[in-house]
Amino acid sequence: MDQEIIETGIQALGEAKIPSPMLKEEHGGIHHLFVSDEDRVMINIKQAAIRAMMANGISPPAFELAGPRRKVYFDASKLRCAIVTCGGLCPGLNDIIRAIVLELHYRYGVKIIYGVRHGLEGFIPEFNHDFLDLTPTRVTTIMNMGGSILGSSRGAQDIERVADCLEVNNIGILFMVGGDGTLMAASKIADAIAQRGLKISVVGIPKTIDNDIHLISRSFGFDTAVDVARLAIQSAHNEAIAYPNGIGLIKLMGRHSGFIAATAALAQQDANFVLIPEVDFDLDGPKGLMAAIENRVTSRGHAVVVVAEGAGQKFFEHVDERRDPSGNIRLNDIGPFLKEAIKAHFAEKAIPLNIKYIDPSYMIRSLPANANDSVFCGFLGRDAVHAGMAGKTKLVIGHWNNHFVHLPMVATAGRRKQVRPSGKLWTTVLESTGQPSLKNDPA
Amino acid sequence: MDQEIIETGIQALGEAKIPSPMLKEEHGGIHHLFVSDEDRVMINIKQAAIRAMMANGISPPAFELAGPRRKVYFDASKLRCAIVTCGGLCPGLNDIIRAIVLELHYRYGVKIIYGVRHGLEGFIPEFNHDFLDLTPTRVTTIMNMGGSILGSSRGAQDIERVADCLEVNNIGILFMVGGDGTLMAASKIADAIAQRGLKISVVGIPKTIDNDIHLISRSFGFDTAVDVARLAIQSAHNEAIAYPNGIGLIKLMGRHSGFIAATAALAQQDANFVLIPEVDFDLDGPKGLMAAIENRVTSRGHAVVVVAEGAGQKFFEHVDERRDPSGNIRLNDIGPFLKEAIKAHFAEKAIPLNIKYIDPSYMIRSLPANANDSVFCGFLGRDAVHAGMAGKTKLVIGHWNNHFVHLPMVATAGRRKQVRPSGKLWTTVLESTGQPSLKNDPA
Amino acid sequence: MDQEIIETGIQALGEAKIPSPMLKEEHGGIHHLFVSDEDRVMINIKQAAIRAMMANGISPPAFELAGPRRKVYFDASKLRCAIVTCGGLCPGLNDIIRAIVLELHYRYGVKIIYGVRHGLEGFIPEFNHDFLDLTPTRVTTIMNMGGSILGSSRGAQDIERVADCLEVNNIGILFMVGGDGTLMAASKIADAIAQRGLKISVVGIPKTIDNDIHLISRSFGFDTAVDVARLAIQSAHNEAIAYPNGIGLIKLMGRHSGFIAATAALAQQDANFVLIPEVDFDLDGPKGLMAAIENRVTSRGHAVVVVAEGAGQKFFEHVDERRDPSGNIRLNDIGPFLKEAIKAHFAEKAIPLNIKYIDPSYMIRSLPANANDSVFCGFLGRDAVHAGMAGKTKLVIGHWNNHFVHLPMVATAGRRKQVRPSGKLWTTVLESTGQPSLKNDPA
Amino acid sequence: MDQEIIETGIQALGEAKIPSPMLKEEHGGIHHLFVSDEDRVMINIKQAAIRAMMANGISPPAFELAGPRRKVYFDASKLRCAIVTCGGLCPGLNDIIRAIVLELHYRYGVKIIYGVRHGLEGFIPEFNHDFLDLTPTRVTTIMNMGGSILGSSRGAQDIERVADCLEVNNIGILFMVGGDGTLMAASKIADAIAQRGLKISVVGIPKTIDNDIHLISRSFGFDTAVDVARLAIQSAHNEAIAYPNGIGLIKLMGRHSGFIAATAALAQQDANFVLIPEVDFDLDGPKGLMAAIENRVTSRGHAVVVVAEGAGQKFFEHVDERRDPSGNIRLNDIGPFLKEAIKAHFAEKAIPLNIKYIDPSYMIRSLPANANDSVFCGFLGRDAVHAGMAGKTKLVIGHWNNHFVHLPMVATAGRRKQVRPSGKLWTTVLESTGQPSLKNDPA
Repeated sequence: MDQEIIETGIQALGEAKIPSPMLKEEHGGIHHLFVSDEDRVMINIKQAAIRAMMANGISPPAFELAGPRRKVYFDASKLRCAIVTCGGLCPGLNDIIRAIVLELHYRYGVKIIYGVRHGLEGFIPEFNHDFLDLTPTRVTTIMNMGGSILGSSRGAQDIERVADCLEVNNIGILFMVGGDGTLMAASKIADAIAQRGLKISVVGIPKTIDNDIHLISRSFGFDTAVDVARLAIQSAHNEAIAYPNGIGLIKLMGRHSGFIAATAALAQQDANFVLIPEVDFDLDGPKGLMAAIENRVTSRGHAVVVVAEGAGQKFFEHVDERRDPSGNIRLNDIGPFLKEAIKAHFAEKAIPLNIKYIDPSYMIRSLPANANDSVFCGFLGRDAVHAGMAGKTKLVIGHWNNHFVHLPMVATAGRRKQVRPSGKLWTTVLESTGQPSLKNDPA
Repeated sequence: MDQEIIETGIQALGEAKIPSPMLKEEHGGIHHLFVSDEDRVMINIKQAAIRAMMANGISPPAFELAGPRRKVYFDASKLRCAIVTCGGLCPGLNDIIRAIVLELHYRYGVKIIYGVRHGLEGFIPEFNHDFLDLTPTRVTTIMNMGGSILGSSRGAQDIERVADCLEVNNIGILFMVGGDGTLMAASKIADAIAQRGLKISVVGIPKTIDNDIHLISRSFGFDTAVDVARLAIQSAHNEAIAYPNGIGLIKLMGRHSGFIAATAALAQQDANFVLIPEVDFDLDGPKGLMAAIENRVTSRGHAVVVVAEGAGQKFFEHVDERRDPSGNIRLNDIGPFLKEAIKAHFAEKAIPLNIKYIDPSYMIRSLPANANDSVFCGFLGRDAVHAGMAGKTKLVIGHWNNHFVHLPMVATAGRRKQVRPSGKLWTTVLESTGQPSLKNDPA
Repeated sequence: MDQEIIETGIQALGEAKIPSPMLKEEHGGIHHLFVSDEDRVMINIKQAAIRAMMANGISPPAFELAGPRRKVYFDASKLRCAIVTCGGLCPGLNDIIRAIVLELHYRYGVKIIYGVRHGLEGFIPEFNHDFLDLTPTRVTTIMNMGGSILGSSRGAQDIERVADCLEVNNIGILFMVGGDGTLMAASKIADAIAQRGLKISVVGIPKTIDNDIHLISRSFGFDTAVDVARLAIQSAHNEAIAYPNGIGLIKLMGRHSGFIAATAALAQQDANFVLIPEVDFDLDGPKGLMAAIENRVTSRGHAVVVVAEGAGQKFFEHVDERRDPSGNIRLNDIGPFLKEAIKAHFAEKAIPLNIKYIDPSYMIRSLPANANDSVFCGFLGRDAVHAGMAGKTKLVIGHWNNHFVHLPMVATAGRRKQVRPSGKLWTTVLESTGQPSLKNDPA
Repeated sequence: MDQEIIETGIQALGEAKIPSPMLKEEHGGIHHLFVSDEDRVMINIKQAAIRAMMANGISPPAFELAGPRRKVYFDASKLRCAIVTCGGLCPGLNDIIRAIVLELHYRYGVKIIYGVRHGLEGFIPEFNHDFLDLTPTRVTTIMNMGGSILGSSRGAQDIERVADCLEVNNIGILFMVGGDGTLMAASKIADAIAQRGLKISVVGIPKTIDNDIHLISRSFGFDTAVDVARLAIQSAHNEAIAYPNGIGLIKLMGRHSGFIAATAALAQQDANFVLIPEVDFDLDGPKGLMAAIENRVTSRGHAVVVVAEGAGQKFFEHVDERRDPSGNIRLNDIGPFLKEAIKAHFAEKAIPLNIKYIDPSYMIRSLPANANDSVFCGFLGRDAVHAGMAGKTKLVIGHWNNHFVHLPMVATAGRRKQVRPSGKLWTTVLESTGQPSLKNDPA
């Protein structure tokens, strides 16, 4: 996958000296799988690359394994923890909250766990969002509910005031579940805390339904999203084939990456065109999308088009010259834009058209996690607890080549994973759809 | 339900003289439930109304029961039938097609059944939509597919040319599945046929996912639609409660009636406001929708709004004075209109807002039928066959007080069933939502 | 449906003199649909039957309509209510509990509502099942959960001790949700109460997933059951067609009636044989089931058999002569019995066989209600509240020809609705399966 | 994961000299991701292990990457291929068939593809199972169907006669989808072919819904199975909590491994006991299962028990001494055995009991694949085609550390992957359930 060598050192608040409370359970019959910081898995697992590095005396980079440590940093009996979920909803948030609470409570004996309401707003007194007391009873049945019992919010808050709140409430570990912006904020919060000389661990769990976090092969909620996106493609296909010159147009999530669009198109192979941010395409001209759709519809009678929300953003730069939409929000919405463009094209060519536009985004992101995501979220939550209890900080829990690992926050922040145009996923989508390049020859 | 007395006579092409092929099956052990034209069920079943009519010497009106007759009009061995599905997709179309084909083939021995492609277009040669040969093999597994294997189209075609097509192809029974427009066309086709002196039965199966056909207590696909609409309300609710001042706005189907919106709101009682075409509401003013939503959001933190697509159309008459949307299509779309209106209202009041808009319509109508609708569609299709074989024409198959019945096409056409503002459904919605009148006091 | 004339008088505790608290809401904009005891719907709605009765001076029997009355019997401010759910789980129990609690609380202002735990056991002190306090907060989100938040139990308890509990706790209305046994107990409880001179209303909501309550056209949970039973038939069909001489055998619920089996077989028309308690069949002999299955499998390669649990119980009378099962419970289980019988038959004939047996019963009954059942349960719960508040007692809430009605408990108890062998449902099943009579000619 | 060094050489029929037909598509705009035999991924990716091997001069073992090669062995225009599916049904079979057919047809231009009916039986003339002609039209919509359109069968057939069939029909590539027995047969078929000097590639796709194939981290269908198993656990939980002393007992698939049971128990964390083949337990005695269940039920009121079908087989060795079941098949069925054992235990202790037993196995394995499995199966099918076209033989397509790879058939055959009692999956199950060791102390 990723060829580069990253700095994989994980920061810690100090030496973990306290025997883990989990050790006591050994006598009770649960033999936990303790992990040491020396347990590491290779990042690059291509044989040739490993050999080349070894030959040149370079130690191949590896991620630290996540999991419980034999020694912990915090005294659980005095520890207070806090959990916050930020940004857009994503299937699995409640599974993660549940796993963190149950693991802290039952494995380590932590009794005080605060649920921060409505994202970062929950730290700022003016918003009047009281903390929720999170107990096993409160969370035990939440795994089959969509959304987040803590709520969420978008946007930044003052870092120092967040730190104030943590300090005042005597928080020892802060678990932050959120996307790129949240993890950047988490990193700054950790810095602000350090500057105050406080010992607070900040552990992140990366959230992006788009599955596009750098160095993380899978993010939670993605699998559920593809399940539902598949239904939307089925619907669009049923509509498209039912009507003469029928077109089904589905917009799926993916601001900067086309993983959902590409994967859903492979799950339900009814799509004839898949448009993603990573692969440029032209609208007009002999090889452009409009001509290709027209060709497909006139020869085959129908077409199904899947577009990731971040695709084709270049068309909005000079949008005034094309048409005159009314507002800013709509301006950048590729779904309605494409719908109107297709209608205009067919109208100009005087070809009858039956186009149906489907945007299932909000129905996808607010669903409960499917079984696979529930299991996955359970591991993420538990490993976040182990990392925090060990005193590690400024890290996120990742998943790489089938292992749960620790990544420094700075390694994932500000960069995104994308669908590689020459990779197995995208070339298989091209095979499945049979779509051409959609790019005109240079003049 | 309906108090009026309707003309319930069903037209026939002539006397049914041929013993039904189904009679032979009696020897094989299947004892069919034959029905006579004298088997009728009361339309109005309120005791007081019946007594009053009786007392006044009025014979209470009744519908003819649907079902197989002992004598049929057509010689099945020479009969050709045709099926056409028109208008918007609706869960259950394939179940109906399947039931008609299997019943014609196995019960009556009809061997030639044409599937007319893409609605009324399929009758007009220029569209080049060939007939599909419908055999048991072709239809046996289609009941779990969404859409219609025949396809559909919108809009009228020349009635005489449809009649030409029926005549040229020597069709004996035409089964038409469609909405109000289709049934009006069906009525005219039957008239045109009669004028030519042809003996062609035209049997309609009313289709409206909105469940708003006059004198028909339930139309197919509605139950499936409510199943899925429920999920959309759940999603909207999850979004609304997650964010500070969160609003979830769902647009559901229902051009002239609010049955889907009202029933879905009872199935998933998370809605705080339900807006339907039958019940007027104001946007502005102290008791208008905007004030009510503002009040709910500021006092309770969130709101869920369900709007039927036909609600609030009055706001579009003087729309230019309100705001300036870009095009015609959007002008009449109450969903985005309400979304923008709510945003404008909260912006003006400087109240933060998190609004999410969900339109699941195309995902609903293209789904396969649920079990209940599948069973229902099976009966509709079979009873349509029995009616046609008996030589009845210009009728539709209806459902009234738990019985499948015959209705004259003219009885249903051009009028719609609506949610009664003082009826059990709507008053229960009001109880469930607690929504106020949303009407300002007259000046 | 049912031709007989029943005694439809509903008992009352006394005259309802108190203006309904719901009347006050009229000012708030909710215009409730009040119903009077004179609002009645005909039981028999066949035109000929009505005419004949009228001609003979017989007033056709009618059911009292359910719904809110303008006057109530109880003073809501002092009223305590109790809800109990008995017998087997059924989709929709929580919807009913929720509707009763919300209606009592919001419409009438009743503040004390007890949830009786684990069925009738909850009334008997020795079992130590404390009452649950049912508040709007407690029930507001339970509609999407399966099971019953109150729990249930099977079996009778001492009627006088139940009455003791009601008396001690000063209960005014007892809502009992349960099957035939529960309603008989309810009737006796009402009698015991009356004998003590107490004024306690006992309102029943008939529960049978089998949909076989006398004079009740639909019971809650049935629709959901058919939804899931359909999946079991699909599975059995997939198994049957995959293997040479494949047989898929599905046992569905239905102790005394075959409604689920028959309806599911129409929803998913893959069944070749449907066996129900109402229709006798032979196992052996030239026309028996074994010969018929053998014939189907050897000629068509596979067979799907749906059996209701109450079918074929006659085979267990002299079971010892046939084979030697180990225990009593298994003795009467038609599913494994048929599986073994088919295996023995094919083994004897030396015909290879691949048989798969599916029993989805517990997965069906513990599910949440589907949308249709949720809406239905909401009405049942609300109408039970209205009946109780009006002081009516010893009645159940029924559904007949699309109307919610009041039935005296004695009218439904001890008798069952069954699938009529000559009715529309069963003859259509026979058409769909093509199954022969499965009865040998008399010797 | 696996520490051992395996022989990873993949056999080939001869040198691949023909430029791949896929190369021509480069001009059409599809840039395929060609793979060379030197592209390999490490088997063991633990950093310490790699370093140790390197230090000792051992080259760490690696798998050959799957994917299209630039040169192929077969001339597609003359090639005939065959596909067979064997053993039990598993979600995804049709997705694999579809992917193989479409890839052979569209990417390589292979026009003759035979579907072998009913597993290995389809090769043997006496069974009279004709080949199915597999074309794109035939397979294009099968991905949403359960089962296998080719059918299946269990049991071995004469290897030489299979080879005869391949030879007579001039097959070039045989795709075999099946479990351990099938892959062993595949290996012998490849040997028999080689001995005849024929050039036929045999490519396996390992099928086990249990996910327990040696050296394969994930097998298709498993993810779908866990989805449905989760529902069974929910049902069992709803039943268990509803009744006094309620126990829900669910048997899940897993003859030799507990992956489904363990993973489903993590997806739906309602289970209190999970029993798998890999972890021994006692039934009786102070620490045995019966005592533990009794303890749980009497203290907490209910229990949910998940048992993999292969668990507790030791109890059947001396079964006659314990109780006396009637037949052989039942003898080894741990589900009913446990149900009876629990009933006997509670009866002996005179503790009331409500136990419900759920076996969802056949409903799970005959379902369509979920989105995740569909995507996965698509890759398996395509990579099988690439391997076969390249002339590779006696290999299977595997998945290891997120890469699709080639494994020699002999490497996977005859050994199974199992849940490691000290691994992350099982220790997390123990945490989630809180179950004790269930083993008595040695005497």
